[in-house]
Amino acid sequence: MLDFSITILGNGSAVPTAWQNPSAQMLHYNQHRFLIDCGEGTQMQMIKYQVSYRNLSHIFISHLHGDHYFGLIGLISTLHLFGREKPLHVYGPQPLEQILLMQLKASDTRLKFPLLFHPMPASGIIYEDGDLEVTCFPLNHRIPTWGFLFREKPKERNLRKDFVAKYHPGVAQMHQIKQGADFVLPDGTALPNRDITKTPPKPRCYAFCSDTAYDEKLIPYLRGVDLLYHEATFDDAMADKAAEKYHSTARQAAQLAARAKVDKLLLGHFSARFSTPDHLLKEAREVFPHTFLSVQGDTYAL
Amino acid sequence: MLDFSITILGNGSAVPTAWQNPSAQMLHYNQHRFLIDCGEGTQMQMIKYQVSYRNLSHIFISHLHGDHYFGLIGLISTLHLFGREKPLHVYGPQPLEQILLMQLKASDTRLKFPLLFHPMPASGIIYEDGDLEVTCFPLNHRIPTWGFLFREKPKERNLRKDFVAKYHPGVAQMHQIKQGADFVLPDGTALPNRDITKTPPKPRCYAFCSDTAYDEKLIPYLRGVDLLYHEATFDDAMADKAAEKYHSTARQAAQLAARAKVDKLLLGHFSARFSTPDHLLKEAREVFPHTFLSVQGDTYAL
Repeated sequence: MLDFSITILGNGSAVPTAWQNPSAQMLHYNQHRFLIDCGEGTQMQMIKYQVSYRNLSHIFISHLHGDHYFGLIGLISTLHLFGREKPLHVYGPQPLEQILLMQLKASDTRLKFPLLFHPMPASGIIYEDGDLEVTCFPLNHRIPTWGFLFREKPKERNLRKDFVAKYHPGVAQMHQIKQGADFVLPDGTALPNRDITKTPPKPRCYAFCSDTAYDEKLIPYLRGVDLLYHEATFDDAMADKAAEKYHSTARQAAQLAARAKVDKLLLGHFSARFSTPDHLLKEAREVFPHTFLSVQGDTYAL
Repeated sequence: MLDFSITILGNGSAVPTAWQNPSAQMLHYNQHRFLIDCGEGTQMQMIKYQVSYRNLSHIFISHLHGDHYFGLIGLISTLHLFGREKPLHVYGPQPLEQILLMQLKASDTRLKFPLLFHPMPASGIIYEDGDLEVTCFPLNHRIPTWGFLFREKPKERNLRKDFVAKYHPGVAQMHQIKQGADFVLPDGTALPNRDITKTPPKPRCYAFCSDTAYDEKLIPYLRGVDLLYHEATFDDAMADKAAEKYHSTARQAAQLAARAKVDKLLLGHFSARFSTPDHLLKEAREVFPHTFLSVQGDTYAL
């Protein structure tokens, strides 16, 4: 299977601490690298955790609270200074474009690479290649905020080697069989597709939801995803604060994960007031046992 | 003597490395804290080196290359989230104001404290209190860039205790004597000021020059300062590159220090290509022996 994983570069919330950087994570899909959010210091985190930006081509910014994007202009500057020539695509809320351009202008920087800005639509597919598609959808936060789904495209069915060796199908036939067609022998007998092919691995899906209040409107987007990263800024005792600030408790993240029947839940965006998020894990696991705490520098495979 | 010192928070140049953060330093004067430049990650450096921003009231930004200010909006956000109410004064190139305001608007942030922006004049005194004055002056860089002088005001002369005990001068007389007046006895005899007072400590002066090409036009500003922080981005072998990029070599920094007859030279803004700046120190000391390398987290007293 192709590598499909995320590396956590920052899992803190608004205020950085000695142990938590603001939001950022690098998604690996085969040779591709996609950055999701880029809080202050993200480029330093990449150095610290030896996460290369060599194959970084697309950056997705969830919203314009600083802890999710203040590191972007610094990363762009560094790519420029290192002589990048390949285009860089940035997806984010519309005002981000002017914020970036104004800062490039103030430093009289003419980027050596094309910076292609894509304002986020309300929802829908924003990126697509042969293997993967990225969808954005609205979260429930104080300012416009988006979640992201990274979904593998369904793979073709695999031909069984014994079938190919015995019947020598032509190229056109092989293509049809991979799409699900049966194979018809000269005498008219049909070999059913399920007997001559193997089912490919189930397409995998990663969902990123930060920042958001608990909101069941997200369930249709999240249903059955393999890994859900969901914010868990607060604990049970601070549920009122979570609602007031349009954030979630760890338990609420778990409730959403349970209702959307995701496979695994990964918690992050921890409040700076907690020196450890261990009790958040305990509270979430009471609702959804398949919950894990994100750890900076760690990589989670799908 | 009052505490007058600087703590280096970042002494790297444009591109951060595992061992160098971009420019920032905290100047301590008695209870006051002044921040000079604020590269990305400065607030994390403050946490790391336990440099408090509790008494930070004034921030001076030398120019709008990102390695000198990309951390400012994050620091301002953190001060806001921690409930700061005291005014914060920011001195910088005019476009900085819009850059800050645009980012505050995008996050729908209404600061809890007054953010008072002061666009930098071409040169002159930009800050003054009872003890200290701050002057800005133009450096020679690719975009408009300023150096800063932090100069103690001359102190009044101190009355000798034996004189006061013997002659009991009145309040008005004491004030005049502190300003330099002689003391006249009832019989008309004058006690010369130099016999009844002590000379106060010489006013101290700190100069910050980053970023700049070697430029002898700076000498009048720097003459006789106690401590000069000067950029030393490149080494001797890269003198051409230094000129081309409007930066200095360590040797050039030393030449300027020698010609301006400063007391001590502190080097910084080291290129990311040097894993250690030791050879920069060697090259500079050949010209100006009283040269030192800045070290992140270290504090230098005047």
